[in-house]
Amino acid sequence: MKPEEDAFGQQFWAQYNGTESFEVMEREDGYIDVGDPKLYFSEYADWPPFEQKAMKFVKGRVLDIGCGAGRHSLFLQEKGFDVLGIDNSPLAVQICRLRGLKKAEVMTIDEVHFKPNSFDTILMMGNNFGLFANFKKAQRLLNRFYRMTSKDAVIIAGTRDVYRTESPAHLRYQEFNRRRDRMSGQIRMRLRFKEYSSKWFDYLMVSKEELKDILEGTGWRTKEFIDSDHSFYIAIMEKALK
Amino acid sequence: MKPEEDAFGQQFWAQYNGTESFEVMEREDGYIDVGDPKLYFSEYADWPPFEQKAMKFVKGRVLDIGCGAGRHSLFLQEKGFDVLGIDNSPLAVQICRLRGLKKAEVMTIDEVHFKPNSFDTILMMGNNFGLFANFKKAQRLLNRFYRMTSKDAVIIAGTRDVYRTESPAHLRYQEFNRRRDRMSGQIRMRLRFKEYSSKWFDYLMVSKEELKDILEGTGWRTKEFIDSDHSFYIAIMEKALK
Repeated sequence: MKPEEDAFGQQFWAQYNGTESFEVMEREDGYIDVGDPKLYFSEYADWPPFEQKAMKFVKGRVLDIGCGAGRHSLFLQEKGFDVLGIDNSPLAVQICRLRGLKKAEVMTIDEVHFKPNSFDTILMMGNNFGLFANFKKAQRLLNRFYRMTSKDAVIIAGTRDVYRTESPAHLRYQEFNRRRDRMSGQIRMRLRFKEYSSKWFDYLMVSKEELKDILEGTGWRTKEFIDSDHSFYIAIMEKALK
Repeated sequence: MKPEEDAFGQQFWAQYNGTESFEVMEREDGYIDVGDPKLYFSEYADWPPFEQKAMKFVKGRVLDIGCGAGRHSLFLQEKGFDVLGIDNSPLAVQICRLRGLKKAEVMTIDEVHFKPNSFDTILMMGNNFGLFANFKKAQRLLNRFYRMTSKDAVIIAGTRDVYRTESPAHLRYQEFNRRRDRMSGQIRMRLRFKEYSSKWFDYLMVSKEELKDILEGTGWRTKEFIDSDHSFYIAIMEKALK
């Protein structure tokens, strides 16, 4: 990516250097939302319980997709796991390394190609199921992840049940998506931070039923859902055919 | 304004109702910044010292231009001053009334027309010198304010010395402004909150020298500057010709 597109990385970089940071998301329909930038540097003890619980499913060699500033990767590395963190943000990866992550690479989810049996866990925390972008791409990548992983492998992915909202603006946007044959929660958005703006990208949020539809035929099935006390949840997926 | 343009009011309304609020500003060059929404509901004890000091210059009948959620107006009303708060945001004015402000009206700065000797203090706190928008309009409004006020009247206005920055993005934008014959700190921006977006508007920030240039010929002169420990400052202006 061009340096001016690394809004995510710049947001982390500011925080890493102790200067003001914030997270602003712009949806294609003009809806603006903010996130909590402190989240990305938070320690295990500060994570919400449903995220902590998800860590119990981690095993063996871990691929952390969209590792951000490395909060999960660093926690797991500390616990003795063999972790590779990848992120499409060059600055995020630099920060992971500065924070002590031994294996961190700049890589988009599309560039994820590894030999069979390379990983036992694929981690997509913090809503990173979204990186699957859309139904077809999710299926294609899930098939690829199947080949890359051991027979007892798991995928641990966080997402959000978009139907659990009463916001007229969100419901309108979901309807707009369905009318043009996109999934309700296939959100086209970009991240903005000061003079930096990411490219527009699709970020996919799904209900549990939709998640199951996506898994169909990919070799993966849901093993467990970990609910939060709001619309976020984490899906633990395992191989249906071992 | 159209309801969907009242981003400021919606931001206050969310906060007034105890739901998530945030302040996102978008400059015309794509620069994104956030403010602290809690500021707008803060009590005197929580204000920065330079704002507290400015209150000592308030006298008599007060016009609070861009009163927002009413923090200054309510403080002064409590102190016994006769205060009229105006804001272009209908929701902001509604909130002021709900919070107990006796005199609050929906009015833009352009609509400010009052009989001679109507006020003793014009208050433009929290960077609201910016509402003057540009050099010419500032002079036109200052002339009008002269006629509306008593002979010992003061204007208390907060602004920001835009030259006190090292941000390349800000310096580039200032240069861009000068090239097209705008003042360096004549910022074209809009406010965005969830599905709400204000219209684009000019917000003027000036150095002390620039402020003095603007006052030239308006009948006003600077009486005192109250500095903060950063680029913000408050100008106390009085009538040069009484």
